[in-house]
Amino acid sequence: MSADAGIKSSSTSAEAPGAPDPALLEDIVTANRILSDQGIIDAYGHISARDPLRPGHYWISRSMAPALVTGTDIIACDLDNNPVRTGETRLFFERVIHGEIYKARPDVMAILHNHAPSLIPFCNSDTRLRPMVGSAAFLGEGAPVFDIRSVDDEGDLNICNVAQARGLAQALGPHCLVLLRGHGAVFAGDSIRQVVRRAVIAESNARQQMQAAMLGPVHFLTASEIAFAKRSKPKDPDRAWQLWKQRAMRG
Amino acid sequence: MSADAGIKSSSTSAEAPGAPDPALLEDIVTANRILSDQGIIDAYGHISARDPLRPGHYWISRSMAPALVTGTDIIACDLDNNPVRTGETRLFFERVIHGEIYKARPDVMAILHNHAPSLIPFCNSDTRLRPMVGSAAFLGEGAPVFDIRSVDDEGDLNICNVAQARGLAQALGPHCLVLLRGHGAVFAGDSIRQVVRRAVIAESNARQQMQAAMLGPVHFLTASEIAFAKRSKPKDPDRAWQLWKQRAMRG
Amino acid sequence: MSADAGIKSSSTSAEAPGAPDPALLEDIVTANRILSDQGIIDAYGHISARDPLRPGHYWISRSMAPALVTGTDIIACDLDNNPVRTGETRLFFERVIHGEIYKARPDVMAILHNHAPSLIPFCNSDTRLRPMVGSAAFLGEGAPVFDIRSVDDEGDLNICNVAQARGLAQALGPHCLVLLRGHGAVFAGDSIRQVVRRAVIAESNARQQMQAAMLGPVHFLTASEIAFAKRSKPKDPDRAWQLWKQRAMRG
Amino acid sequence: MSADAGIKSSSTSAEAPGAPDPALLEDIVTANRILSDQGIIDAYGHISARDPLRPGHYWISRSMAPALVTGTDIIACDLDNNPVRTGETRLFFERVIHGEIYKARPDVMAILHNHAPSLIPFCNSDTRLRPMVGSAAFLGEGAPVFDIRSVDDEGDLNICNVAQARGLAQALGPHCLVLLRGHGAVFAGDSIRQVVRRAVIAESNARQQMQAAMLGPVHFLTASEIAFAKRSKPKDPDRAWQLWKQRAMRG
Repeated sequence: MSADAGIKSSSTSAEAPGAPDPALLEDIVTANRILSDQGIIDAYGHISARDPLRPGHYWISRSMAPALVTGTDIIACDLDNNPVRTGETRLFFERVIHGEIYKARPDVMAILHNHAPSLIPFCNSDTRLRPMVGSAAFLGEGAPVFDIRSVDDEGDLNICNVAQARGLAQALGPHCLVLLRGHGAVFAGDSIRQVVRRAVIAESNARQQMQAAMLGPVHFLTASEIAFAKRSKPKDPDRAWQLWKQRAMRG
Repeated sequence: MSADAGIKSSSTSAEAPGAPDPALLEDIVTANRILSDQGIIDAYGHISARDPLRPGHYWISRSMAPALVTGTDIIACDLDNNPVRTGETRLFFERVIHGEIYKARPDVMAILHNHAPSLIPFCNSDTRLRPMVGSAAFLGEGAPVFDIRSVDDEGDLNICNVAQARGLAQALGPHCLVLLRGHGAVFAGDSIRQVVRRAVIAESNARQQMQAAMLGPVHFLTASEIAFAKRSKPKDPDRAWQLWKQRAMRG
Repeated sequence: MSADAGIKSSSTSAEAPGAPDPALLEDIVTANRILSDQGIIDAYGHISARDPLRPGHYWISRSMAPALVTGTDIIACDLDNNPVRTGETRLFFERVIHGEIYKARPDVMAILHNHAPSLIPFCNSDTRLRPMVGSAAFLGEGAPVFDIRSVDDEGDLNICNVAQARGLAQALGPHCLVLLRGHGAVFAGDSIRQVVRRAVIAESNARQQMQAAMLGPVHFLTASEIAFAKRSKPKDPDRAWQLWKQRAMRG
Repeated sequence: MSADAGIKSSSTSAEAPGAPDPALLEDIVTANRILSDQGIIDAYGHISARDPLRPGHYWISRSMAPALVTGTDIIACDLDNNPVRTGETRLFFERVIHGEIYKARPDVMAILHNHAPSLIPFCNSDTRLRPMVGSAAFLGEGAPVFDIRSVDDEGDLNICNVAQARGLAQALGPHCLVLLRGHGAVFAGDSIRQVVRRAVIAESNARQQMQAAMLGPVHFLTASEIAFAKRSKPKDPDRAWQLWKQRAMRG
């Protein structure tokens, strides 16, 4: 199993983007800072955004600690995960996650992979992560768990090649969060801000679900409440984004 | 179910207050900062105070993150939750909680709604939040839990209309705290400072009760101790307020 | 039950101290700051030191938040808890704890009363707080728990009068820590530094014992290890004191 | 049982190092700061590095709080734990741990002893600390636990003499972590950076394992995944080191 197996395929750079939209660029940088400041990404996670004008490309930071990302660190890759800029080598080896999910899910505009500290217990348990509060309704009837052994069972549990990433995308299915046994989480959503918001909410939901389990049976959102959330939009989600941004940027 | 159903009723602005008492104004701003600094309110909670001279009105911040509230953000609403100032539109849609509780409970002078992180497990459990220490005696025989399904069951669990807010006020009854299934908490008290104090104490009490549950059966305050607390006043409560204020304001 | 019942008895101020030893004064102030900085005292606890030259008196801060204590706030009381300075009224009503324990235990040179957040679960449980590590051997076979109902059962659980304080001192017995049901903890030791050190250790020991309880049966120190600790001195305890002081004073 | 029994044996200072390699020196200092900043070492732990050119010697700080260590505090000892510089007396009494493990394990180039807060529950439990995630595969089938009673049972649980340290080295065996009942942990690895990295990972793994235990049966890494990790290197471990260093040095 080679770390980059299957990634170095051909790319059509003719349609490749030169620079992202400034607002999108700022959101990607801010997302890296917020996730670090909130303690839900460590030195190794990554977040990407699909280019809205060239949906065959996505933007992601070079391989580095998210806490240190600035605008000049954001690079473009095609959906085969090849960098647009020739010779760029400072790449996350797990970026294959991004390309394969963008291919499988045309609706997805942003993807986050992290080693979410409070989600790990659910990655290694038969107990599903389920919504405790309305804002966590996106967890539905329980976040699916991807076991890399469904693809191969000799590795370090990282998603290193196309086959593994396709298995992961399959486990994600139509959901917006998939947990990875012995590894972490992948969030997929319609914007950088939505994905960050859900990652923050998933963390607190996980902590509260574990605490509630100590008190006895836990009452989760009902099927009807989960269905309602699918048809509606959250109220004023940017209020939290702006507050988190202010905190992350002062740190 | 419309988000503002029932809120836009007629209001008699003749008796409406122009500005709050400066000391009250400062307490409302300070409360927003303390609750944020202590981590028991997030970007979405709100706290209000009834106007002591015009009890048909209350003061609350415009719809914004509590951590950022300043004196100029505090506005007046009547008990039908209409803003006194014509054309004011930056309003919390859940402000209906405040109006309905002030109507149902003439003794209540301050109300807090938050998504108290350590109280959520009790919102979704059959285990009641009960007093571990003397200062938490206000929890009585256990904080009641309001299930919005007792009013309607198709929503996002937020309190968006008068019917839901009346159901909530009914569940609160004569208590000073009601938990909301899948949502959070509402505190009602005789002053901004009392409500903030109780919100801080409820958080630590919840954490300690969950920890104690890991050790075996938990011994709560006795009925006689709870009754004594109802007849007496806490000793020097302002000492904590001043300390929390100092910490919140330096942050 | 009056808050100060029994405290205002006669005092012989002839032998009363005018000012404490400067090193002792600094330790008392530092202790207040460390305990606040470490989060194991809130706005309401207090720590005292017996005067080494006039053992019928002790030093304690005026009634105020420990985090704000400075040298000019330290006052002297006799063992009937009367202030040496005439007209001093800013006194902790629970100072009766200090006088009664100093009377009952001539060996005790310092006393701390706090609402130790991680000890409260043990105050309300049948599970005893027991030593997880060598430095916590002072917990012996388990910290005793004082139930104020053994004295009277109509109050707010505070130690307000001599009878209650005597009951508490009796429950403490020869131990160095007694837990108070529904209230908190009292540490008694041979110096300010020892008492602070033990309060810090008791907090972490409590957290670790609760966590270990989640894993199954817990193995505590043996009787022989507890006995050894009674005969020996801790190695270089001041290293921690100096580190905690540095952190507390910069905050 | 004397604290230094067996340590003062003969040393051949002829081959003794005068100063460590500057890069190694900086890593030792940085390690002390990172471990303190991350809260996984308190005032009493210590970390050492074997001298790569003179494998009969190791470098360690003088007896002091790790948070305060600077380059001038790093001293050399031989494997009998005698300081190279004549008259140096400010020594950790538990340094015997280092010498005995370096003797028993020629492959080991760095050793850390700490009172790891989240590992203590596993020190006193029959439940083994096992790997939750790929980066914790070094925990293997479960970290061994050393019970000092296998050597003697009259002490303060510290490792004070050669017999105890040899017993500890035996319990460590070929592993890279051994837990000490009622005491803490010892990590052994091939570099300062590896040992620090593993200490950080072990702490979060312990917390996640305890949380997962609340949810039901826990699924750990498989034997095949553990075996794979033994044959491979972690990807870009220095990214975390540099991030932790930046945080520790600004504090």
